[in-house]
Amino acid sequence: MTQNDTFTLAGRSYSSRLLVGTGKYKDFEETRQAIEASGTEIVTVAIRRSNIGQNPGEPNLLDYVAPSKYTILPNTAGCYTADEAVRTLRLARELLDGHALVKLEVLGSADNLFPNMPETLEAARTLVKEGFQVMVYCTDDPIQCRMLEDIGCIAVMPLASLIGSGMGILNPWNLRLIIDSIKVPVLVDAGVGTASDAAVAMELGCDAVLMNTAIAGARNPILMASAMKKAVQAGREAFLAGRVPRKFYSADPSSPAEGLLTPRKRD
Amino acid sequence: MTQNDTFTLAGRSYSSRLLVGTGKYKDFEETRQAIEASGTEIVTVAIRRSNIGQNPGEPNLLDYVAPSKYTILPNTAGCYTADEAVRTLRLARELLDGHALVKLEVLGSADNLFPNMPETLEAARTLVKEGFQVMVYCTDDPIQCRMLEDIGCIAVMPLASLIGSGMGILNPWNLRLIIDSIKVPVLVDAGVGTASDAAVAMELGCDAVLMNTAIAGARNPILMASAMKKAVQAGREAFLAGRVPRKFYSADPSSPAEGLLTPRKRD
Amino acid sequence: MTQNDTFTLAGRSYSSRLLVGTGKYKDFEETRQAIEASGTEIVTVAIRRSNIGQNPGEPNLLDYVAPSKYTILPNTAGCYTADEAVRTLRLARELLDGHALVKLEVLGSADNLFPNMPETLEAARTLVKEGFQVMVYCTDDPIQCRMLEDIGCIAVMPLASLIGSGMGILNPWNLRLIIDSIKVPVLVDAGVGTASDAAVAMELGCDAVLMNTAIAGARNPILMASAMKKAVQAGREAFLAGRVPRKFYSADPSSPAEGLLTPRKRD
Amino acid sequence: MTQNDTFTLAGRSYSSRLLVGTGKYKDFEETRQAIEASGTEIVTVAIRRSNIGQNPGEPNLLDYVAPSKYTILPNTAGCYTADEAVRTLRLARELLDGHALVKLEVLGSADNLFPNMPETLEAARTLVKEGFQVMVYCTDDPIQCRMLEDIGCIAVMPLASLIGSGMGILNPWNLRLIIDSIKVPVLVDAGVGTASDAAVAMELGCDAVLMNTAIAGARNPILMASAMKKAVQAGREAFLAGRVPRKFYSADPSSPAEGLLTPRKRD
Repeated sequence: MTQNDTFTLAGRSYSSRLLVGTGKYKDFEETRQAIEASGTEIVTVAIRRSNIGQNPGEPNLLDYVAPSKYTILPNTAGCYTADEAVRTLRLARELLDGHALVKLEVLGSADNLFPNMPETLEAARTLVKEGFQVMVYCTDDPIQCRMLEDIGCIAVMPLASLIGSGMGILNPWNLRLIIDSIKVPVLVDAGVGTASDAAVAMELGCDAVLMNTAIAGARNPILMASAMKKAVQAGREAFLAGRVPRKFYSADPSSPAEGLLTPRKRD
Repeated sequence: MTQNDTFTLAGRSYSSRLLVGTGKYKDFEETRQAIEASGTEIVTVAIRRSNIGQNPGEPNLLDYVAPSKYTILPNTAGCYTADEAVRTLRLARELLDGHALVKLEVLGSADNLFPNMPETLEAARTLVKEGFQVMVYCTDDPIQCRMLEDIGCIAVMPLASLIGSGMGILNPWNLRLIIDSIKVPVLVDAGVGTASDAAVAMELGCDAVLMNTAIAGARNPILMASAMKKAVQAGREAFLAGRVPRKFYSADPSSPAEGLLTPRKRD
Repeated sequence: MTQNDTFTLAGRSYSSRLLVGTGKYKDFEETRQAIEASGTEIVTVAIRRSNIGQNPGEPNLLDYVAPSKYTILPNTAGCYTADEAVRTLRLARELLDGHALVKLEVLGSADNLFPNMPETLEAARTLVKEGFQVMVYCTDDPIQCRMLEDIGCIAVMPLASLIGSGMGILNPWNLRLIIDSIKVPVLVDAGVGTASDAAVAMELGCDAVLMNTAIAGARNPILMASAMKKAVQAGREAFLAGRVPRKFYSADPSSPAEGLLTPRKRD
Repeated sequence: MTQNDTFTLAGRSYSSRLLVGTGKYKDFEETRQAIEASGTEIVTVAIRRSNIGQNPGEPNLLDYVAPSKYTILPNTAGCYTADEAVRTLRLARELLDGHALVKLEVLGSADNLFPNMPETLEAARTLVKEGFQVMVYCTDDPIQCRMLEDIGCIAVMPLASLIGSGMGILNPWNLRLIIDSIKVPVLVDAGVGTASDAAVAMELGCDAVLMNTAIAGARNPILMASAMKKAVQAGREAFLAGRVPRKFYSADPSSPAEGLLTPRKRD
């Protein structure tokens, strides 16, 4: 029904709007099954934590998540400075034969994994200059998201809530501001806890959702991956279908209410 | 993946946990298409508003929504007393050849379509005695839901918010209290506005969701019906998969937090 | 500034819109101090739990909370049937020399202390006939609140959330429906956890707030009583002052938003 | 009761935790009355919009809001670059005889008045070097708030929601992260719409609240100023008094719930 509704990233179209991580699974086989159940086409890999060839004698994630089947998105999880992040992604490019599409994340604190935006902006500038196609984990700040777009990043990925928290979308209003403010794709990254969170992100007008813990940390990761696949599709279709307006009740004597969050107007 | 996860009502199993209404569509053909896209197996019909044979010369809804394909659930929309509701369902039983499965609703006010619970309880008693299998639209009151169960109703259907309001689930806590308090199926009826609302209902542990306006009133009802089908499945799978716990942040210096809504424990 | 803004109950005017309970304090002296700090003029007493003369040899609450200073509001906490509640209030009338102002509460479950509305309605009918001036703890159901008004109750007291839960106002929309639907005073009873909850209740247009656990269960009950006094005044003044409308942002490209909760229009 | 609970800013103690602006009033006389009713001790003045002596022939705000009575806090409302903001505050220092306490705000967009954090950080560095005592309007980003503290700012002032929006505290979780992350005072600045919003900010553990539109834009600004005075006191007292824990219900069969927002632990 929405078969022609694709999502474009770095010149390539994707049918699935769900991106998934590879951490926190029991083993690579569970990772493989969950990824398959999720229907994803883009899999993000923490270069500092996953072996994609750096450690030749050890099990290689890419034997389970084949680059021929999935777009591999190297990320800089665990980096706390622009410099660390840039060096990590240069290594990834080497390991992945010149692969330019990357996810930048520079963290500000090990306590809460919140982004460090000044370092993120600096790393983004360097990486764009070096020819990377940069997707960026960032705060839900519309001004700094626009700066990332101006720098040349190809997508912004504001957190919905803290990495691994499962708290869902704490500030949908800021997401809406970002969606209204920029032209590059907006992906919710971090904080999704359950299926409805993913649906809400898509209903707000986000282009896609990235998650890891919500699937890997569920009691049944494979089933949760299936739930997330459907939730992202449901949220996208609901966005495209144009939901009914909210109205309190027909006989409401109040003045017309204001300020409730509505989805972005479609062009 | 969840193919064996069925939902039983009056001794019959259903795969779909989405029930839909038939009002507010452009025409019967749109009704038919939306119902098909929703994947529903149970369709509710307002006996006072839809022709299912009472008016022989006019178009008959059942020519578009075939009782051979769908379980038809006659409802008493528009009734304001127990007496009106009981008489309406007796008529429905006649029109539908002894059909016993019905949805009772007795409204308290034309301004807000809130249930009238004393009249609802009275009508439920009469209908159960007369051999009806009664599903009941009701308030989100765990005590009165248990009374309805004690009377012999086969399912309770608390409102999430006002009929047609699209406001979503205003009080998930009461829904949880109801789910914890009774054994018959709990269906959210009324108030769903968009896909994530349906997912939330299922994640709370509801057995199914009934909606009409959210689909019929969308800009594209057929696409919204598809969204709702996926949302209900997503929410159900997420419930079964066991979501990650919410935790604010690892270094939170507060005492362990309390009171956040969690899904019902599975048996 | 709002010195002429009084609140009338059973023909008597009160300046304070905060009603407090007397349970769960360390001792009667703490009860006395908290009540004084709260600025309340109406104190509710659980007849089944507090000695106001039934047990002649024991400490009498009324020696600390003088009926000459406060309106004593006997309540039926702990009653689960209409009959128990009616008998309890007859006893209270005797102990309090013909006192007619009472608070009726009939509970539906010891697990959650939710009201039993059918029993509540029955007790209300009996008590009104017997000349009591009945304030009623009830669900946040606008239809049954109107029934209580029609029966002749002088105030309805819907729960904000479960007694003792401290969860705050779970469904402000239903409170607004009630406020719009009836003419007798609407008091939030049960569920307030902290000062802002009380302010929210008043901003919605409630006439007053009743609480016990939120004060008695605070680490410092006397200071919390002071906080609640100010919060109720603040919420009332904000309601009277007419808050600014909520608007998301000036350049919002969305269609005018709908459905956000606004305070009741003042006459 | 909380008479010794003072709030220290740049070495000076204040009893009132409510700071107010001076814009959007009908005239200077209304400004004066609202400020008096608010009980504030610190009044912020937009140097680019208010005459505090720059325009000698025109009415001077300081004739209504006397620096002998109130701490005047010059702010840079309307500045979009670090350079503009720094120059504006140098002018303010001159007009106010060497006054060092200032409120920095550098905006990122005229559409939404969101802060521009890179320019804000740059301006803060310059101003601290030049001996200003800098309070900073900023995003609710705990990492950048800590950077502002490290630079030497004396207080951070994250937005609760957009300036003038009246939307209240959209992300209390981020405020809590900030409060937990830094030592300088945290003031909510921008977004408060009504009394309960101010109470919530204080209950979260904020040190103070700054507002302008919520008072000046109310139907009755003087009464709303009084409401805000009481709401800030109520929220502060509730914070100090230690609220009851939230718990859903005693018989809740769920696993202990997690993730609900609780106030900062007091030292």
